[in-house]
Amino acid sequence: MNEQDTEAERRHREKMVKRKAVQDAEVASKTIAQKALLIVHTGPGKGKSTAAFGLIMRAIGHDWHVGIVQFIKGAWATGERRTLDHFPDQVRWHTMGEGFTWETQDRARDVAAAEAAWGKVLELMADPTIRLLVLDELNIALRYDYLPLAEVVETLKTRRSDLHVVVTGRNAKPELIEAADLVTEMVAVKHHFGAGVKAQEGIEF
Amino acid sequence: MNEQDTEAERRHREKMVKRKAVQDAEVASKTIAQKALLIVHTGPGKGKSTAAFGLIMRAIGHDWHVGIVQFIKGAWATGERRTLDHFPDQVRWHTMGEGFTWETQDRARDVAAAEAAWGKVLELMADPTIRLLVLDELNIALRYDYLPLAEVVETLKTRRSDLHVVVTGRNAKPELIEAADLVTEMVAVKHHFGAGVKAQEGIEF
Repeated sequence: MNEQDTEAERRHREKMVKRKAVQDAEVASKTIAQKALLIVHTGPGKGKSTAAFGLIMRAIGHDWHVGIVQFIKGAWATGERRTLDHFPDQVRWHTMGEGFTWETQDRARDVAAAEAAWGKVLELMADPTIRLLVLDELNIALRYDYLPLAEVVETLKTRRSDLHVVVTGRNAKPELIEAADLVTEMVAVKHHFGAGVKAQEGIEF
Repeated sequence: MNEQDTEAERRHREKMVKRKAVQDAEVASKTIAQKALLIVHTGPGKGKSTAAFGLIMRAIGHDWHVGIVQFIKGAWATGERRTLDHFPDQVRWHTMGEGFTWETQDRARDVAAAEAAWGKVLELMADPTIRLLVLDELNIALRYDYLPLAEVVETLKTRRSDLHVVVTGRNAKPELIEAADLVTEMVAVKHHFGAGVKAQEGIEF
């Protein structure tokens, strides 16, 4: 190692010592040890449902039971279903929607489907074995006023204290964001659809 | 159903017919049927590695073989590992990093770990059975110049044509974004750390 390397090493180490101090202080500032989170994945980019699916698979690795209610049929597909089929004892999955709302073109049917889905949510919330509940595309049902927003938000806020909930979908309502502990917006920086590439099997469905 | 309902129904249907036409036109405009994607998950928010993990689990559902190289040890944890252990024939997983760089405070060791990890990447890229390769936290190794950027980007760009690659980590280099097909930025809208809540087992690790 020559002198220049040594100097670079030293500077790197100094910088990292400072970085670690900041990191350690941040960790130490957290005093609430356990809190079930209300998580929202929103924004126009990819990854909202996929990250929720990742959370489900992580929870399964912790031997948790999970519930999934899909407000829009078709948002998840073969790949997810076949993977989840490996864990039948840990997963309760309900697909309640009737396809994207611009496919059905029937508001009354969409409202009925959303209400049925919400009924399933209440059922799963009451099951004490479930530790994680994913409400996929609930934001779309709220956006089109298929469900009463205030009631939905209040029910999520007053849920039992050991239940993590993940809500996905674009255009999350401000009231839901206000109630949430963790909100991530997925932003599309670049998309292959713009380059004329179709959705890819195995990756997107 | 009263008259007002009928009118609302009609307006909804008209709007959705238009929405569907836009959607259909967009789908029809895609002419490239198959293309393995170079995907980047970046940004300061949560969900970068979790969405990559979700992609892995979806790919597993399609019976694909996947490769995972972690450039930073500790970014993934027990939950993921225990889930992936259910699919030993489909997963090749290498953890090469030595912990976050501000923990090691040793640049030479970090560079050596990054180089060893990149060696594994080349090995997995050469395995024709692998359809999806996740390079977790590669962006951190590139940000600290632990690896030669131009060489890494060129290798990813010239990979075999049936291999999807996902790169995660904050601060993705512009050169990598330029080369990628799909780039999503995860933005933190709200975070429970700000409310003094610790990272939650089962959800965050």
